[in-house]
Amino acid sequence: MKNIIVGQSGGPTAVINGSLYGVVSEGLKHSDSIERIYGMVNGIEGFLNGNMMDIGALGKTNELELVRTTPGAYLGSCRYKLPEDLADSVYPTLFQKFEEHNIGYFFYIGGNDSMDTVSKLSRYAEEIHSDIRFIGVPKTIDNDLVETDHTPGYGSAAKYVATVVREIATDANVYDNKQSVTIVEVMGRHAGWLTAASILARKFEGDNPVLIYLPEVAFDQDAFIEKVREGLKTTPNLVVCISEGINDGNGTFICEYASDVGTDSFGHKMLTGSGKYLENLVKEKIGVKVRSIELNVCQRCSCAHLSRVDLDESVNAGIYAVQVALMGDTGKMITFIRNKSVPYELSYGTADVNIICNQEKPVPAEWIINEGSDISDQFIDYVRPLTQGYVELPTKNGIPLFAYRK
Amino acid sequence: MKNIIVGQSGGPTAVINGSLYGVVSEGLKHSDSIERIYGMVNGIEGFLNGNMMDIGALGKTNELELVRTTPGAYLGSCRYKLPEDLADSVYPTLFQKFEEHNIGYFFYIGGNDSMDTVSKLSRYAEEIHSDIRFIGVPKTIDNDLVETDHTPGYGSAAKYVATVVREIATDANVYDNKQSVTIVEVMGRHAGWLTAASILARKFEGDNPVLIYLPEVAFDQDAFIEKVREGLKTTPNLVVCISEGINDGNGTFICEYASDVGTDSFGHKMLTGSGKYLENLVKEKIGVKVRSIELNVCQRCSCAHLSRVDLDESVNAGIYAVQVALMGDTGKMITFIRNKSVPYELSYGTADVNIICNQEKPVPAEWIINEGSDISDQFIDYVRPLTQGYVELPTKNGIPLFAYRK
Repeated sequence: MKNIIVGQSGGPTAVINGSLYGVVSEGLKHSDSIERIYGMVNGIEGFLNGNMMDIGALGKTNELELVRTTPGAYLGSCRYKLPEDLADSVYPTLFQKFEEHNIGYFFYIGGNDSMDTVSKLSRYAEEIHSDIRFIGVPKTIDNDLVETDHTPGYGSAAKYVATVVREIATDANVYDNKQSVTIVEVMGRHAGWLTAASILARKFEGDNPVLIYLPEVAFDQDAFIEKVREGLKTTPNLVVCISEGINDGNGTFICEYASDVGTDSFGHKMLTGSGKYLENLVKEKIGVKVRSIELNVCQRCSCAHLSRVDLDESVNAGIYAVQVALMGDTGKMITFIRNKSVPYELSYGTADVNIICNQEKPVPAEWIINEGSDISDQFIDYVRPLTQGYVELPTKNGIPLFAYRK
Repeated sequence: MKNIIVGQSGGPTAVINGSLYGVVSEGLKHSDSIERIYGMVNGIEGFLNGNMMDIGALGKTNELELVRTTPGAYLGSCRYKLPEDLADSVYPTLFQKFEEHNIGYFFYIGGNDSMDTVSKLSRYAEEIHSDIRFIGVPKTIDNDLVETDHTPGYGSAAKYVATVVREIATDANVYDNKQSVTIVEVMGRHAGWLTAASILARKFEGDNPVLIYLPEVAFDQDAFIEKVREGLKTTPNLVVCISEGINDGNGTFICEYASDVGTDSFGHKMLTGSGKYLENLVKEKIGVKVRSIELNVCQRCSCAHLSRVDLDESVNAGIYAVQVALMGDTGKMITFIRNKSVPYELSYGTADVNIICNQEKPVPAEWIINEGSDISDQFIDYVRPLTQGYVELPTKNGIPLFAYRK
């Protein structure tokens, strides 16, 4: 009889707890081989500080079911990178702690950096001939992991962005007797998957957002101003979506062009985002009413527009992780294999975590069209199935009920 | 046989189209006395420019049903103030247009300024002995209209703020091994009703948002910093909600203290909100990690957290407006009279629009506690019933479906 330990790492998503639920609920089913299920509180960093909980015990209450639909990271997260050098003393420390708690299976739910943790731990385990099994469960709204069709968390975030941009466009149209430009900045430093999803906000061809810019294509400020001028001719209240990471193609983010934003009341240098910079640029060059909206943390942690497909797949990723670990796999990440888009069919697989952890998957160049200002229909075919289905949330007094560690 | 004309004015809400649906659907039922139902496109300003549509015709399609759950102002809005002087030539112009279109009933859905329009038109009508009836249908997320228990639009916005603040607090807790402060800025220049609703985000006593500040009480920056220091002792990831209109009690908004924010890349003076100012203040005085989040236009136009109570009441306000106009009322606004909070019981009434249009209703002083940093339970009893119930939205391809003028 061995124990499981599971942790969450990196930024939260709306469904990362779905994967946690998957690991715990599947673990509880294997009472023949698994005795206890521990949660690391605040990831591997918290575990190193002795911070853990008996998350398997939640299975005896209604709390585990509530965890399934709670956004954010129930166990808490961390941004802790293990040393590159496997001879570092942190590794024996960690494995001694694993032994103390009779850990046989280690699950880590996260993105790129979390897969790096899984990679290092599984390689160290091999070195010392430990038979602890290390499995990564993917999670990122950025959708930038290689070797998988998409990542848990992306579908719900994509649905959130599409819906909110449709709402913002509706709001912008309220005064449609005046010209205006609204610039919506979406998360994504290096990959534009989430920003691209704003295309789903269009209600008809030519509808807002008329322009969509991703970090994958070099951003030309003059060409952008021309596109805005052109767009205003047919759409008096123009909505433009941009990734926070749009850049000039020579290594400079567009937000870095805002060099002269001065200091705050306390003498600190003010930082500004790409949306704010472009707001000022449009005001300067075209002179119409402009506003920029930076979508806040809700794009990664809102339960408002959960995709049932995304939540179910996130749960299944956690379940499958336990199953493959029990069958002997280690050093793997769970992957999604799309068999068909219409009707949507998915299989679950695994890939070597070592080839995933230091790669980023960009939006394919051929899906970015109109000189980098729009997205093609192939992307719509890709993303549409991931945003489907409604999840009914438990509520109390009208407000969604969330699980939290007491 | 007379015609109806209906318009929308001021900022949009999630349910302003519910009231439009109410007016149109009720108007269609009275085919014995009402021939056509026109919509002003972009309010009274659009009407003056001859911009109107046959909105009654939507009743023959599914479109009218879709209008009911579409956020934003379907007819478009305006911010146009009629001249104070009733001898101005715009009045005979307007009434000539009313006559040309055989208008017998005029409905205007909006807040304070819209009620000012209803007041002026009804007073002018009295002067010239016109028998056109003018009725105001209240609408504002600010909840600041007098003579009514609350306003359509407030309940859904309150539910949005409560839910989103709960999500933001969940997100903030993800790294709960580090101290942090998150400042959430909510709409409300003069009245704090919407910000106060953030209290519903608390999952247990002492939960976030630990501090809530409204414009009704003078904001003391030193006292605020002390409260934040104190709060951090028990809540390492502190969430603070503030109204955009918090001020020093001497006529200066807190955001105006940010005097030195400098200029943007194009030499324009940068503006900053109260949240951003306080972010910098906390960084300077306490030195912990701080971020500020300005809730964007979605707080007024999102369909994500519609309150069924709010939507139903908004529809009913439109229905009742048509009924009282047909019975001969004019120069009135529809009002809500709360009979009981538990179980919640509401009656509909009317009040003289002239005593409403230039007044603002603040949050009662006795509901604001702890030196202006918290809200009392009486407020919770007041707001809770307004946020109840779920509205199932029509969707297409997973994204909420909105009506729009073709």
